[in-house]
Amino acid sequence: MTKEIYENPDLKKERQNCPFNKEEITNFLDGGKEKTTERRQLETYILSDEQLKDPVPMEYLSHADKYAEDLRKSCLLMHKLADSPAGQVQTLRSLMGAGLGSAILKEGNPIALHYVMFIPALMGQGTVEQQAKWLEKAYNLNIIGTYAQTELGHGTFLRGLETKATYDPATKEFILESPSLTAYKWWPGSLGKTANYAVVMAQLYTKGKCEGIHPFMVQLRDEETHEPLPGILVGEIGPKLGMNTNDNGYLGFDKVRIPREQLLMKHSQVLENGTYVKPTNSKLSYATMVFVRVVVCQDVTLNLRKAVTIATRYSCVRRQSELKPGDREPQVMDYQAQQHKLLPPLAATFGFQLAADHLWNLYNTANNSMEQGDMELLPDLHGLSCALKALCSSEAANFVETCRQSCGGHGYMSCSNFPRIYGQVTAAITYEGENTVLWLQVARYLVKTRKEKSGGLSVKYLIDEEKGPRTVDTTPEGILRLYRRVAVGLVDIAIAELENNSRKGYAPHDAWNHAAVHLIKAAQAHARLFVVESFVDSLKESRLSSPVRSILSQLCELFIIYWILDRSGDFFLVSLLTNAILDKGKLSFKKREQTS
Amino acid sequence: MTKEIYENPDLKKERQNCPFNKEEITNFLDGGKEKTTERRQLETYILSDEQLKDPVPMEYLSHADKYAEDLRKSCLLMHKLADSPAGQVQTLRSLMGAGLGSAILKEGNPIALHYVMFIPALMGQGTVEQQAKWLEKAYNLNIIGTYAQTELGHGTFLRGLETKATYDPATKEFILESPSLTAYKWWPGSLGKTANYAVVMAQLYTKGKCEGIHPFMVQLRDEETHEPLPGILVGEIGPKLGMNTNDNGYLGFDKVRIPREQLLMKHSQVLENGTYVKPTNSKLSYATMVFVRVVVCQDVTLNLRKAVTIATRYSCVRRQSELKPGDREPQVMDYQAQQHKLLPPLAATFGFQLAADHLWNLYNTANNSMEQGDMELLPDLHGLSCALKALCSSEAANFVETCRQSCGGHGYMSCSNFPRIYGQVTAAITYEGENTVLWLQVARYLVKTRKEKSGGLSVKYLIDEEKGPRTVDTTPEGILRLYRRVAVGLVDIAIAELENNSRKGYAPHDAWNHAAVHLIKAAQAHARLFVVESFVDSLKESRLSSPVRSILSQLCELFIIYWILDRSGDFFLVSLLTNAILDKGKLSFKKREQTS
Ligand SMILES: Cc1cc2nc3c(=O)[nH]c(=O)nc-3n(C[C@H](O)[C@H](O)[C@H](O)COP(=O)(O)OP(=O)(O)OC[C@H]3O[C@@H](n4cnc5c(N)ncnc54)[C@H](O)[C@@H]3O)c2cc1C
Ligand SMILES: Cc1cc2nc3c(=O)[nH]c(=O)nc-3n(C[C@H](O)[C@H](O)[C@H](O)COP(=O)(O)OP(=O)(O)OC[C@H]3O[C@@H](n4cnc5c(N)ncnc54)[C@H](O)[C@@H]3O)c2cc1C
Repeated sequence: MTKEIYENPDLKKERQNCPFNKEEITNFLDGGKEKTTERRQLETYILSDEQLKDPVPMEYLSHADKYAEDLRKSCLLMHKLADSPAGQVQTLRSLMGAGLGSAILKEGNPIALHYVMFIPALMGQGTVEQQAKWLEKAYNLNIIGTYAQTELGHGTFLRGLETKATYDPATKEFILESPSLTAYKWWPGSLGKTANYAVVMAQLYTKGKCEGIHPFMVQLRDEETHEPLPGILVGEIGPKLGMNTNDNGYLGFDKVRIPREQLLMKHSQVLENGTYVKPTNSKLSYATMVFVRVVVCQDVTLNLRKAVTIATRYSCVRRQSELKPGDREPQVMDYQAQQHKLLPPLAATFGFQLAADHLWNLYNTANNSMEQGDMELLPDLHGLSCALKALCSSEAANFVETCRQSCGGHGYMSCSNFPRIYGQVTAAITYEGENTVLWLQVARYLVKTRKEKSGGLSVKYLIDEEKGPRTVDTTPEGILRLYRRVAVGLVDIAIAELENNSRKGYAPHDAWNHAAVHLIKAAQAHARLFVVESFVDSLKESRLSSPVRSILSQLCELFIIYWILDRSGDFFLVSLLTNAILDKGKLSFKKREQTS
Repeated sequence: MTKEIYENPDLKKERQNCPFNKEEITNFLDGGKEKTTERRQLETYILSDEQLKDPVPMEYLSHADKYAEDLRKSCLLMHKLADSPAGQVQTLRSLMGAGLGSAILKEGNPIALHYVMFIPALMGQGTVEQQAKWLEKAYNLNIIGTYAQTELGHGTFLRGLETKATYDPATKEFILESPSLTAYKWWPGSLGKTANYAVVMAQLYTKGKCEGIHPFMVQLRDEETHEPLPGILVGEIGPKLGMNTNDNGYLGFDKVRIPREQLLMKHSQVLENGTYVKPTNSKLSYATMVFVRVVVCQDVTLNLRKAVTIATRYSCVRRQSELKPGDREPQVMDYQAQQHKLLPPLAATFGFQLAADHLWNLYNTANNSMEQGDMELLPDLHGLSCALKALCSSEAANFVETCRQSCGGHGYMSCSNFPRIYGQVTAAITYEGENTVLWLQVARYLVKTRKEKSGGLSVKYLIDEEKGPRTVDTTPEGILRLYRRVAVGLVDIAIAELENNSRKGYAPHDAWNHAAVHLIKAAQAHARLFVVESFVDSLKESRLSSPVRSILSQLCELFIIYWILDRSGDFFLVSLLTNAILDKGKLSFKKREQTS
């Protein structure tokens, strides 16, 4: 027995008018026909389970009940892993991210950190023996962990972390301590209520010397009663703008003793007598950060895609006001102003995803060389991942709000899902590297490259400046050249500012600080260039039917022109913008593209 | 016994370094020394009441409990009215707005609509007899009302409202009906649970003819049991991004009969035999809209002020990262990037308030002429109020988010109060005229003025173009001239676009629609000009000590240059921006101003 699904007549008409094969785009986004099939099987398997539905919409519940409800569902989900049609690894990946998982666990996932941070930390930082001891228990959820890094006093500045782990050779133990209120861990997800173990980052002291931050495996709560162990001060930090069932927590230590073997010792060690053994390679942890940032980009893009889909469909269904006097009220999508709100974010969902895919491929290539001990590609990858994470998260957050507002009053309701999507996307502006701090790191790499004439592939344009004609043409290649010139121009302006500050007698750190606004602008131009280049190149390299190529090329063109119009001051400043391009920009907004 | 209040040492130092008299600025913002005293007395009276405190922070409660808690407090507040040191009217005003009221009723006010919309509607649209019948009951809270206009299907386009009120001369009653699902009222605050009466906007039918939308007084619920009356389908629309204790509701009518006398008949009437009598003046309702929009501007500005205060104080207290190697971690306020986030919104709190005050004065002047039957000032006032409401709400919403993000992770917590402030400010983008729709109305006025060479005071610059030198100087006056030229330039570009579209053969409505993006930009430039002019003029006219004048002038300069930098493309486009100004802009960000 198949249920008829109601289809709004306006939407139906739009879909019938679609000039390309939607399934082809779906496959393109999923990464292939098989991936689409696999995704749909998994979705059916999960979404058809009545027990995974909310008896009462989450937003009506108290803070405590929201958590209880998402915990109930996350336990059920874990039971479904074994029989999943998509295999455990793929299923876990879908359930932890912004896709399928968030359809069930709408306000966050109480055990996400276990899979996303705790297990990876064990694998990346634990010795083979340590992995043997904890990894299976972790996989079987006999223990549930989190990763405790940020403290009340320190998020950005990791060197400032205060939690202390002092080695006591007499008992062969570390003593964990929180020497002040600001030393309390603050923010780790799953810490508030769910986890009974944690990888805790602490300053390692041995033989009277501080050796910096190291990861320690610490049991927090009794495995049976779930009561905090002696000396462990733990709880939830409280309600937030979003992600309210992630039970972010706090954690203090009152002289908690743990065996020496609970220092995760893959990279550095403390011997029984207290001798500290340095890591052989300190750059490896960069690779993990690159990985996590790619995942953040994918997650915010997925969330943006949801927002755009909701707003686009609504704009085809909503009829309001008068366009032609006497006619029926138009679909609000017919207003140019509405298209101006929705088409750039639609284009961005493709641009961001293709850029993230591109970065992911670079990461995999680099990983191979790194396994051969070649670390040369790392700085470039690191720079790109910072830039892309900062750009995607902040632009996606703005776009989500534009989408919400484009739905008028109805967008403001929780049941539109916009408020929740925004809560997730805007959080990514702050975590995994606060965006301003990331921009400044990217800028440092750009300035260094430009001045020393040496750097990786992504910044080659700062070294070998294009000769080509200074005139501007409006082909995608011509416009890419413009983007490159703007990035170069803004880097040069920032450098001039730095030098100017030095001439005024500022110390280097002051000169840097007083050029921050220009440095950030330069870094942003670099990031936009990367996205735009990835977009253009990916379309060139992809095998697509001609109608799909045509619609995606239109979106690509719209996107690269949208950014020029949006930042036209920068383009004027480096004095390359011509009216031809502005006119082209105006034209692009007049084509009405719909994918609903 | 006085309690010592803890003062953070960093904040204390900043306050000691303050080069001006803070009390003077406070008085300036309050509108005089006496106003400050009065406000503080009222605050002490209200805030010291233990019963008005939340036993559990609101954000932990379920949706239903949040409402119950705010309803409890709003009833208590009403009991305190009689003994208030500030008088009933002033106290009510403070309790309904974004100031004192929101310190107690954090998620909204279940009876706000009663005072803000219901009573004013009665006063503005009811006859003397009708006022006699209901007004006293309303003042005594024997009845609690709301104002029901928006429907599920129509918010912006009021002519499209579907609720029907058909006159039946046989019984001398109106029959209220909701002919479809989309005809249900949807959104009115207080309707979901609190109100037992409403002024309902409905299409009036008499003698077989529709006479358009008119206000009807309708009882919704039993005065004793609070149960909905027969034929009344009423309830809450559900959780939202913010303002969750405003119990926005829905309302449907199943052939509900009300006496003829419940049509509010101050302006138009239906006689017993069904004859419709037209209103003598249809422009009067404009005046109410102007008033409400000024209040919206004041409210979002007050909310922005809170956000800026929280972020500025936090930035003086928070120490993070390294500025000078080896030194103590700096206050994050010392980073240029942080100043770049916080100083423009700080300046905006003054700019927006002074512009709203200015509009308020214009409104009062106009009101006097209107009472003499002179409506000439209305179109100009209407245009200004639309422009200012749209600008203040959207800019304030963005600024609030910038403030939140400037506090890193801690800004994301509910206890920072940012999420709640944002929920209130961003709602104002949509209600009381959706911003896009308002911009297009403003643009229509500007285009008309420019083409017909006739319009009110605020658009005089579009008629009598300034002669003066085309060169740019960087005095405030010189920069104001620049703003005016940009506004003129963008209006001309929009007109060129319109004419271009006409030449292509577009019908007028299509030509208009296809110029929307340019029209909106022009309207925004006009609005920014008004704010900037108000800021400069108000400072000129105010009596201020020289240190206070100096700090406010710096903020004013920073603000007008911030907008130039932010929209530098527009300024380049109209080709008047020079490097001199850009350099001045850079300079302004290097001065560190603090008011914490
Ligand atoms: C939803 C959410 C989930 C989180 N989950 C986790 C988790 O699971 N585990 C965990 O360990 N942590 C977690 N965090 C914490 C997060 O990693 C930190 O909030 C983040 O690192 C930012 O640090 P901060 O909050 O200390 O901000 P701060 O660094 O204090 O930032 C405050 C302001 O100072 C500015 N600033 C700071 N340094 C500089 C500089 N050098 N130059 C210029 N400006 C500067 C910033 O730009 C910002 O405007 C989470 C945070 C959020 C919001
Ligand atoms: C928090 C909140 C409280 C509210 N309280 C009340 C209340 O107490 N009483 C009450 O009666 N109502 C209330 N409302 C409803 C509010 O007045 C409407 O939401 C508002 O008028 C916008 O109308 P809409 O929702 O129909 O949006 P729509 O008009 O449907 O807007 C959808 C999209 O279409 C676009 N659009 C519409 N017309 C045009 C046009 N002509 N040209 C170009 N674009 C167009 C808009 O820009 C928008 O992007 C409230 C709303 C909110 C969010």
